[in-house]
Amino acid sequence: MAADGRVFEGKKVLVTGGLGFIGSNLATRLVGFGAEVLLVDSLIPEYGGHLFNIQQVREKVRVNISDVRDEHSMRYLVQGEDFLFNLAGQTSHLDSMTDPYTDLEINARAQLSILECCRKYNPSLEIVFASTRQIYGKPEYLPVNESHPLRPVDVNGINKMAGECYHLLYHTVYGIRSCVLRLTNTYGPRMRVKDARQTFLGVWIRQLMENKPFEVWDGTQLRDFTYVDDAVDALLMAAGNDHAGGHVFNLGGDCVISLKDLADLLIEIHGGGEYVLRSFPPNRKQIDIGNYYADFSRIRDALNWRPTISLREGLTRTLAFYREHLSRYV
Amino acid sequence: MAADGRVFEGKKVLVTGGLGFIGSNLATRLVGFGAEVLLVDSLIPEYGGHLFNIQQVREKVRVNISDVRDEHSMRYLVQGEDFLFNLAGQTSHLDSMTDPYTDLEINARAQLSILECCRKYNPSLEIVFASTRQIYGKPEYLPVNESHPLRPVDVNGINKMAGECYHLLYHTVYGIRSCVLRLTNTYGPRMRVKDARQTFLGVWIRQLMENKPFEVWDGTQLRDFTYVDDAVDALLMAAGNDHAGGHVFNLGGDCVISLKDLADLLIEIHGGGEYVLRSFPPNRKQIDIGNYYADFSRIRDALNWRPTISLREGLTRTLAFYREHLSRYV
Repeated sequence: MAADGRVFEGKKVLVTGGLGFIGSNLATRLVGFGAEVLLVDSLIPEYGGHLFNIQQVREKVRVNISDVRDEHSMRYLVQGEDFLFNLAGQTSHLDSMTDPYTDLEINARAQLSILECCRKYNPSLEIVFASTRQIYGKPEYLPVNESHPLRPVDVNGINKMAGECYHLLYHTVYGIRSCVLRLTNTYGPRMRVKDARQTFLGVWIRQLMENKPFEVWDGTQLRDFTYVDDAVDALLMAAGNDHAGGHVFNLGGDCVISLKDLADLLIEIHGGGEYVLRSFPPNRKQIDIGNYYADFSRIRDALNWRPTISLREGLTRTLAFYREHLSRYV
Repeated sequence: MAADGRVFEGKKVLVTGGLGFIGSNLATRLVGFGAEVLLVDSLIPEYGGHLFNIQQVREKVRVNISDVRDEHSMRYLVQGEDFLFNLAGQTSHLDSMTDPYTDLEINARAQLSILECCRKYNPSLEIVFASTRQIYGKPEYLPVNESHPLRPVDVNGINKMAGECYHLLYHTVYGIRSCVLRLTNTYGPRMRVKDARQTFLGVWIRQLMENKPFEVWDGTQLRDFTYVDDAVDALLMAAGNDHAGGHVFNLGGDCVISLKDLADLLIEIHGGGEYVLRSFPPNRKQIDIGNYYADFSRIRDALNWRPTISLREGLTRTLAFYREHLSRYV
């Protein structure tokens, strides 16, 4: 089922990370629903923000360039908003190990300060926070449901876990309605393809487009993938549902696939290309989580969400997008 | 069984929070073992540090006044040390709600920077980190073992959880031998009694000594208590055991007692005094965890630790200490 757009008609909606991959896809949808959309993004080159991402709706949204670490601008920006989709984050696992402080500032401290701003200046705001499967660490069982222990294996996972916990805490203690989605590999048009900072799939796509062989590490790991339109649906459904507050929901994919099979599928859809199988680089192996795929029955039962775009269809659309727009993203 | 002091003879031992309640008791023991002890403390008045705490060993330890948030001093201080007992922390649950940033800086960010210093300048250092039962939140079952989900109910619990996770991560990824103890209510001589910032039991003792009625909130909650000498034993055993690295251990007490029964016991031992039963203040109720007591079988089986001082004996010693020294602590 798709999200009900009437919830957002005429509503003021703030999206942090609003020029990023998921944020910009969400913004486009919200504009279609008649929402007044305010996008906050720092446009840090290593992250996912990009003005081209909102090209289609550029004149229909407000864009405010600022950093979620800037408490002063956030204090002003949250005021008067009805919804906050809190998507800004540092996503690179490797970067979080080489520069743990920046990851902490963005994924933990800034989340706390956004929540403090909401508590003080707009406590009736409704928040959906984009968390990540990374906080589970190496799965103890599969598929992973929301009760799985949280044992993050990198600094990014630890800080995202703290950021998530703050949201749930402010819901419980201060009644600021917050809902958490734990995203798995989200992919689709407008994803970062310049490098692997958002997902390895991004850099695969870039190299495929540039007729270079891409590297598949190990290849046996199982993963699930959510097409961005489905992820956007989940965000909208979570915001629009009175009973979602205080809850945590996994997202998932329509299938489970090994990275090697994913590489083969990508090449099949593209009609060519090649990859090399390599063993893990040591610094990546240390923080790898092995096999992962989600049990998303909780959000299916509670919000009637499920993936609607098959991996094949999603990859087809994604490749079509980058065939047309690759130069904007590299 | 008591800790084996030979492990520490002639060894260089750094204790953060070294002038605090547990740190100073640990320091006194380490001096007895012939260790070269360096105590780091910021002496922030709201926390537990106090020079009087180390009066007995003042000439036998080095004291360095600095804050664990100060990366530059920590960078220097960790060098050349064999062991780090990492005890510095902000402990007040209520303070963490009114000033969440300070709690984050001390309990999360500073822990990360201490670990970064160890990684860069002294990776062979062995660390024991003092964590807390607070990270479990409201127990889902009792007694609580180490597999219990982590669902902290206040900012302090979230940040301590992150601090703990960093230690385990640096063990796994960088091989910096870290062991985590999750302390429950630790009590004994040199605890903070000025107010309830370290434990409510502190302010009870102060008011008892001052012949004022103390307040028992609710009174039905069950808790366990570790006498400080037993907590120190656990810290020493964890540092001295080759197999403790990378592990998390609960501490616990010799008995489980309701707060009302504890109040009665305290008055019986003191030979007088009174308390008033009150309902929870609203800001405290929001972050209360209900009943808690630990399953400490893991550390019993792995390190042969168990509480050796009964609650009655521990309270007797504690009251005797404050009868003599109360004026130093208020």
